[in-house]
Amino acid sequence: MTTPDPSGIHSIAAQELMQRGAEGSAFTQWMGTRLRHFEAGRVEIEIDLRSNMTQHHGQAHGAIIGYLADTVSAWAAASVAGDVVTAEYKLNFLAPARGETLWARGEVLRAGKRQVVVRADVYATQHGTDTLVAAALATIASVGQPLNTAPEDRAPQENP
Amino acid sequence: MTTPDPSGIHSIAAQELMQRGAEGSAFTQWMGTRLRHFEAGRVEIEIDLRSNMTQHHGQAHGAIIGYLADTVSAWAAASVAGDVVTAEYKLNFLAPARGETLWARGEVLRAGKRQVVVRADVYATQHGTDTLVAAALATIASVGQPLNTAPEDRAPQENP
Amino acid sequence: MTTPDPSGIHSIAAQELMQRGAEGSAFTQWMGTRLRHFEAGRVEIEIDLRSNMTQHHGQAHGAIIGYLADTVSAWAAASVAGDVVTAEYKLNFLAPARGETLWARGEVLRAGKRQVVVRADVYATQHGTDTLVAAALATIASVGQPLNTAPEDRAPQENP
Amino acid sequence: MTTPDPSGIHSIAAQELMQRGAEGSAFTQWMGTRLRHFEAGRVEIEIDLRSNMTQHHGQAHGAIIGYLADTVSAWAAASVAGDVVTAEYKLNFLAPARGETLWARGEVLRAGKRQVVVRADVYATQHGTDTLVAAALATIASVGQPLNTAPEDRAPQENP
Repeated sequence: MTTPDPSGIHSIAAQELMQRGAEGSAFTQWMGTRLRHFEAGRVEIEIDLRSNMTQHHGQAHGAIIGYLADTVSAWAAASVAGDVVTAEYKLNFLAPARGETLWARGEVLRAGKRQVVVRADVYATQHGTDTLVAAALATIASVGQPLNTAPEDRAPQENP
Repeated sequence: MTTPDPSGIHSIAAQELMQRGAEGSAFTQWMGTRLRHFEAGRVEIEIDLRSNMTQHHGQAHGAIIGYLADTVSAWAAASVAGDVVTAEYKLNFLAPARGETLWARGEVLRAGKRQVVVRADVYATQHGTDTLVAAALATIASVGQPLNTAPEDRAPQENP
Repeated sequence: MTTPDPSGIHSIAAQELMQRGAEGSAFTQWMGTRLRHFEAGRVEIEIDLRSNMTQHHGQAHGAIIGYLADTVSAWAAASVAGDVVTAEYKLNFLAPARGETLWARGEVLRAGKRQVVVRADVYATQHGTDTLVAAALATIASVGQPLNTAPEDRAPQENP
Repeated sequence: MTTPDPSGIHSIAAQELMQRGAEGSAFTQWMGTRLRHFEAGRVEIEIDLRSNMTQHHGQAHGAIIGYLADTVSAWAAASVAGDVVTAEYKLNFLAPARGETLWARGEVLRAGKRQVVVRADVYATQHGTDTLVAAALATIASVGQPLNTAPEDRAPQENP
């Protein structure tokens, strides 16, 4: 029996997802990506902002922001569609990303049979204050079987 | 006296650009980015694909592709507009990126006073064969003074 | 003296915006665009879905959806930045757009001096039920003076 | 027996495509869209710029540009993949669109089983001079059977 966990991180589906990410990607490990929140259709991840991820003036390099937007979009899609691959994304930079931690939230807008559309936001946390530093819109292609999710975990926007 | 160089890499403007990149960004250094071709409005960069840049199966992580598309777009814009910052980009992944080297070409489509629109392509080179692995379209904001370029170096698409 | 109006449509700024749209564009008139909600940083517009706006099977043509996303993004940006022009947008189609009315909401994510980033959603209303049919992310360039808005009308995300 | 036609417009596949467009969409008819060039993986369309398609100052409304980019992307994808639907596109406006004619070219970058990625350019022709007025990058979903094309008609970039 599992204890209810509002973050959803202890669910079987979330554990599958984390394990895939950890095993699968040397770059994801280099980034030190952590799962922060997990429910079907809504996922949050975070990283510590290290000095080798920065540009001049100490703000995060755009590629780190791009990594977070892309990854959280793929993981949010995976939370409803299982094996996925990013088809495309579009990313707007909104403010310099400074702070100790960067985190991102991905929300599924539409989960079809072949593709999942995800909206993502990236935040920087400095001295406990969040700043929205980027916004993205992504198309994630479904390439396999759904995760082990209960029926009630499906995204509300999913159409047959 | 400088010897003519078709790559343009020995031009003063290209040297300025390389120096800014090298000094400015810990992440750019981690990537090991090299300038491969430089002319006003058209820039190419390349990196060696290392194992800590890969996903499972040895292909480059999407964030590495995103880095190349973003960076080459910014550098192509900088070649006509000087100090710039990426406002937004959109990136389509086209094929798995496997090989020894990844490179990207950015071409200026339109250079206005406030923003430069750049089209970028990312290629993977494996055993001497190039594969187009991603295509991007980017908006780069101009934030300062133009580089030290001769009049004939301006992009052909530039409108007054 | 004006009576308070939660929709904000009776404000001077909204009236300016409507007048500009009505005078400025033959195509906007052909569309029959109406302002549905107006506050600084958040605007909604709507149109009646006519038969000459449809594809086979009676759903709205993609260009009508594109028009709504583009227009509501520009108007939301104008609500905080005055004269604007769309620099670029990205649009995901999520579901067929069927019904009597189509409407769109634009929300300012970031209003800088030179550009405003807007997130837009497009809905179709059929028999009183709304369906999210498209999502967009747009960059709108500021080209002139702000509208006649009171200080408290500024978008909450606006940074100095 | 058919006479060779460099435009490719007399091919069976092109005729199928034109007929679908003409029958299928009231809006396409309102636009008066003509096929200008057709080969597998590369399609051009054009329209006459009428006064009811303009903004103030006589330039084409952004929605007309969006229509052309979206439509030519879908038709270019259809030329290699048959029945298709636009999943998403991103569009940068580059210059005011003035003139007698607007035309657009779509080129397939990658044709996979489920989706086709297309790059599109939109031009305005005024007094015989072409101006590049917009650039787009689109993802088109394949939803049915390929057109009646000969094997040699496949797009060169198509991967197995």
